[in-house]
Amino acid sequence: MTPTYSACILIIGDEILSGRTQDANLKFFGERLAALGIPVREARVVPDVCAEIVAALNAARAKHTYVFTTGGIGPTHDDITTECVAQAFGRKVVMHPEAERRLRAYYGERTNDARLRMALVPDGEDVVLIDNHISVAPGYRIENVFVMAGVPSVARAMFEAVAPTLKGGPPVYSQSIDSHVREGELAPALSKIQAAHPETAIGSYPFMRLDKLGTSIVVRGTDKAAIAAVIAEVGAAMRALGAEPVVSPPP
Amino acid sequence: MTPTYSACILIIGDEILSGRTQDANLKFFGERLAALGIPVREARVVPDVCAEIVAALNAARAKHTYVFTTGGIGPTHDDITTECVAQAFGRKVVMHPEAERRLRAYYGERTNDARLRMALVPDGEDVVLIDNHISVAPGYRIENVFVMAGVPSVARAMFEAVAPTLKGGPPVYSQSIDSHVREGELAPALSKIQAAHPETAIGSYPFMRLDKLGTSIVVRGTDKAAIAAVIAEVGAAMRALGAEPVVSPPP
Repeated sequence: MTPTYSACILIIGDEILSGRTQDANLKFFGERLAALGIPVREARVVPDVCAEIVAALNAARAKHTYVFTTGGIGPTHDDITTECVAQAFGRKVVMHPEAERRLRAYYGERTNDARLRMALVPDGEDVVLIDNHISVAPGYRIENVFVMAGVPSVARAMFEAVAPTLKGGPPVYSQSIDSHVREGELAPALSKIQAAHPETAIGSYPFMRLDKLGTSIVVRGTDKAAIAAVIAEVGAAMRALGAEPVVSPPP
Repeated sequence: MTPTYSACILIIGDEILSGRTQDANLKFFGERLAALGIPVREARVVPDVCAEIVAALNAARAKHTYVFTTGGIGPTHDDITTECVAQAFGRKVVMHPEAERRLRAYYGERTNDARLRMALVPDGEDVVLIDNHISVAPGYRIENVFVMAGVPSVARAMFEAVAPTLKGGPPVYSQSIDSHVREGELAPALSKIQAAHPETAIGSYPFMRLDKLGTSIVVRGTDKAAIAAVIAEVGAAMRALGAEPVVSPPP
């Protein structure tokens, strides 16, 4: 299952690395992009340091179909994403007229230089604003990079604004089957099932619920029939070990 | 505030990238390592693909004081971390006698080849086991890399087992001050305060609570007196904008 389309999520911000803030964007992007046939194949969290942001962004945009950045596009001194994105693309930073218009219309006489920083974008006619129906200040797309806010509600709104424009492969479906069999007991059968079904990716995750250990098997792929076949084989292997599996609804 | 000591967290696993699983380790490591004077300055999430794991690990271990990996050391076919770590170090994979002894003692007649895979480590007398008092199967240290489980309770137990052996700088403290002032109104004053206090890092994070917008300012640094001075200045700036700040307890 080697995807043709792939995405990288670039999470920008000291607050994620210091542990102050729990990232809530990666899980959302992972699920939404899989559904669009653009599996997330890499994520990086970088500090508010321009050289780090530039290096990570340039590596990611060369490697993946799309890159989504979150964080660092607000009005304060620690919001340095746009100058770093511009640097990565070798472009100047300019005020985007439409972004400026939206901010002035929203803030009225409370418009100030700090807020107008949120209208800055890298230079170039190919830069397209990403609407923000939550708090007005837009994100933007430049080539295959989508520059978005870090606040989860705003990041989600921006993602849904651009989702219809993304080009992906067949959606990646998943189904899970859980039981109170131990991972190490199921492992031999699971290896054989994976070898027989290379068109799916089988993940095995131990869990503890109500003090009872068990294993959750997640089957992912683009072919629903193949997923169903693997789920059936894993179920048989679980029953052979004396466990009664619980299967999630088919995708 | 350029740290001498730094850490990278390397999160290994398709399940984090697909959105199936919410990562819960980065926040924990970020907080614990900051307290030990080893700020986390990078995190990467990589899929269960050996070439990706090797490349990320080699980049990270050359750049940071310490690297902590999570995930992929269980008994199933998708647990490939150890063979990738060995590859990154150009070493063979061998059975660690003490790890094997622990697993056999724990599993008794339920020991099988899959479970014994959890006793595999890269070759070398410098490889040191990391105790796992939750589920026995150990992690290990190789040079500046700590290879740990992905399950948060086990990752935490392993981290606490190695924490006393880590060498760090002065601990990084933080204190926050929140109020219902808008980020864009506070920004000009905040820029001046940051410029006057380069020994601290001031982060600004907008929030919405009870439908009211506000800003949380987080001040981080190794000098408690400098943090207190910055908090006082930010408080004065917030009051000048008509807001009543709430300050977290001093570090």
